Amino acid sequence: MALSSYNHQDIRQEAVLIIKNAMVLSMDSQSNYWEDATIVIRGNTIESVGKMQDAEEKYPEARVIDGAGKLVMPGLVNTHTHVPMTIFRGYADDMPLHEWLYEYIFPIESEFINAENVTLGTRLAMAEMLRSGTTTFNDMYYFVDEIARVVDATGMRAVLSEGLIDFAAPGSPTPEEGLRISEELIRKWGSHPRITISVSAHAPYSCSAKLIQDGKALADKYQVPFNIHLAETRKEFDQSIARTGFTPAGYLESLGVLDKNLIAAHGVHLTPEDIDLLAARGVSVAHNPECNMKLASGVAPVPTLLKKGVKVGFGTDGVASNNNLDLFEEINTAAMLHKLISNDPTVLDAKTVVEMATIGGATVLGLDKEIGSLEPGKRADLIILDMKQPHAHPVYNIYSLLVYSMKGSDVETVVIDGRIVMENRKFTYLDEEGLYARAEEVAAQIRERGVELAVLNGKKNLHQS
Amino acid sequence: MALSSYNHQDIRQEAVLIIKNAMVLSMDSQSNYWEDATIVIRGNTIESVGKMQDAEEKYPEARVIDGAGKLVMPGLVNTHTHVPMTIFRGYADDMPLHEWLYEYIFPIESEFINAENVTLGTRLAMAEMLRSGTTTFNDMYYFVDEIARVVDATGMRAVLSEGLIDFAAPGSPTPEEGLRISEELIRKWGSHPRITISVSAHAPYSCSAKLIQDGKALADKYQVPFNIHLAETRKEFDQSIARTGFTPAGYLESLGVLDKNLIAAHGVHLTPEDIDLLAARGVSVAHNPECNMKLASGVAPVPTLLKKGVKVGFGTDGVASNNNLDLFEEINTAAMLHKLISNDPTVLDAKTVVEMATIGGATVLGLDKEIGSLEPGKRADLIILDMKQPHAHPVYNIYSLLVYSMKGSDVETVVIDGRIVMENRKFTYLDEEGLYARAEEVAAQIRERGVELAVLNGKKNLHQS
Repeated sequence: MALSSYNHQDIRQEAVLIIKNAMVLSMDSQSNYWEDATIVIRGNTIESVGKMQDAEEKYPEARVIDGAGKLVMPGLVNTHTHVPMTIFRGYADDMPLHEWLYEYIFPIESEFINAENVTLGTRLAMAEMLRSGTTTFNDMYYFVDEIARVVDATGMRAVLSEGLIDFAAPGSPTPEEGLRISEELIRKWGSHPRITISVSAHAPYSCSAKLIQDGKALADKYQVPFNIHLAETRKEFDQSIARTGFTPAGYLESLGVLDKNLIAAHGVHLTPEDIDLLAARGVSVAHNPECNMKLASGVAPVPTLLKKGVKVGFGTDGVASNNNLDLFEEINTAAMLHKLISNDPTVLDAKTVVEMATIGGATVLGLDKEIGSLEPGKRADLIILDMKQPHAHPVYNIYSLLVYSMKGSDVETVVIDGRIVMENRKFTYLDEEGLYARAEEVAAQIRERGVELAVLNGKKNLHQS
Repeated sequence: MALSSYNHQDIRQEAVLIIKNAMVLSMDSQSNYWEDATIVIRGNTIESVGKMQDAEEKYPEARVIDGAGKLVMPGLVNTHTHVPMTIFRGYADDMPLHEWLYEYIFPIESEFINAENVTLGTRLAMAEMLRSGTTTFNDMYYFVDEIARVVDATGMRAVLSEGLIDFAAPGSPTPEEGLRISEELIRKWGSHPRITISVSAHAPYSCSAKLIQDGKALADKYQVPFNIHLAETRKEFDQSIARTGFTPAGYLESLGVLDKNLIAAHGVHLTPEDIDLLAARGVSVAHNPECNMKLASGVAPVPTLLKKGVKVGFGTDGVASNNNLDLFEEINTAAMLHKLISNDPTVLDAKTVVEMATIGGATVLGLDKEIGSLEPGKRADLIILDMKQPHAHPVYNIYSLLVYSMKGSDVETVVIDGRIVMENRKFTYLDEEGLYARAEEVAAQIRERGVELAVLNGKKNLHQS
């Protein structure tokens, strides 16, 4: 695969950008929150945050955004997703994970995942993420060079990885080819200011021990994160015990790959010993509450993980299982879900889940020195929410309001790496014209093929009424 | 109490309103869905729905809305809420129901619930409901004449009731006075085209047997629904057994009040015998999944209730416990939650929850002959959603899209009783100017008093940082 060139300098940047008169929630270690503050951004970096009277005099060249009636906070961090899968949104619902994955998703992926459709699906995903306040995402999929080009062009920040798997995957006929592509991607995109290339093995049940270890070795060689789906379902847990004699987490320990650069997606079926193991090794967990509920996979033991010191961030998973990329929904659901499951309405309080969605997610991705909070010296990744909404009042507690009342659709303006990538819900670098119609055209082809496959295989016919 | 007069004729109505070129989901008994259809509304009534070429020629006097790129469906029905409680949104979170209710909500309600604040809170609630697609709600609270006046003025449809309770309630010093107010409300508002007055007893644990029976007798006298909170928490269930020898549902049976005009809010802690009893008596259940999760109350056995033939609709409960009035969030959460709890990803499929939120909710309220689906002869209560959104594509299955991907914020235009009450997110009969600032002023008083009460009573001090 010859990877095409990129030029992120095409994206315009203000010399100085000021946001004034705004409510500002910093998510810094002092929990600073101001009801009326000013943020000064120079290039891609936050220069100051807090009370300031004379910002416009001090920076006469600045572009100024009036933040009156608005809330500014760090952009949200999605620690686990598969963005091109937007084209499968709603293709197969209301069924168990293994049936959904092996009988519906894998067959359709093998036919429809190509460079063109990955570009389309990623563009649709970038639009959806920006509209709901996500500024950084961690992705595992195929045709990652195409994903990176869309990320580069639209101004998003991302950690991207090619999914290694034992069978022939779209764009990668063998696991060896997958490893080669992963390394080529790291070399090509490694110096991009908004893109990190990481390495991913799909799951303990779909990758050989050697593939998992080779993938981890490659990640270690370049000091980038290593991702793997872990202990998502009871079936996976039981099969792991039967096949390896270990729990899924114990099996990864036996392979020697558990460490602070490993991001385990899901972590639903963990024994107390598994939790201690993840804590001891410094492993991070990407928590996907809505996907786990919808597929009836279970509930990750997040309150215990946090208590033991495991880093936990939020993920949406791909929209084929969720079915959206809105992290505001995940934090709301998680805050309620863990109260119910723990039979304790005090767990996962509002502030904790906002932390997990911002600085916590940044920590999971190893980016906490750069993003996740609004502090001088950090990259300017922030979202501006419209507070002139009925559900945004009254404000007794800003964290509670964000978690239990505000919505992704309240996000009006998004700044990433100092650039305004969405302003008043209009994208700066993404053309919506024709995007939705093109998604429907591809969906029509997928639906038609799905009906054929159902007939051929005697499966449930999902799309013929 | 002298109830003031009203004049709903102030609200303008088009002679004929046409919505053309729209995707239309009828929720009728044939599950009709058209990708390109026309709806004709005359006065407050739907005249036709479906494919139609010459609507504008046939009705030259009509006001025409172009529905291209939009989805039209019945307005959502909220079967359980307390709308004036918007002024307490986020006042006390992340604690158990009984502590929340008795130590935080009741003391503050007793001081701040008056005619003026009920009007303010109801106006804020109407704004929030319209913005998220609710056209009918079922309310239990105090100062109901004020609530009715706001409903009348803003164009909403509602079933309203004064909450009967054993102790002195805001605006109603004794239970007897509550009963007198309830009857006066029925007489005053009984002929209003969009308002039904019903009767409510707060709960089996907060009302005497006599009060519950007197309330039910009053409801029967005027053939209106009777509401009660039922079996919301494990504590309530256990105390009922200890005090009465019955489960909460069994206790109501012993009082002779279970029948098809009873709407039980919550119904979380029900034995198999209780479920059979509710089914046999034709009782309806208002399911409030988010409130029940957030307060760790439990999960109502909705799949079983539906299987046994119990009518179930969705409620948000008051925003002090939820903390919003968005039914799109409730249907999304319910569809995922019951899959998780049942350990079966096929239960509460997308179509079932959309039915529960529309025609099912209308049935719970006894209004299914008038609203809940788009059919000729029914009242024109409908919402128009903007589909030019990244999360609205592709459309493989319209029910799945609505439940798992769409949001309340996609609602652009709302028609109730044939009147356009919100158009392109601008309210026709509700002035937002000053509404949010006034809510913050009242919240500041409540917060200050909350701090004083905390000091006086040695409680957790929620609002002093």
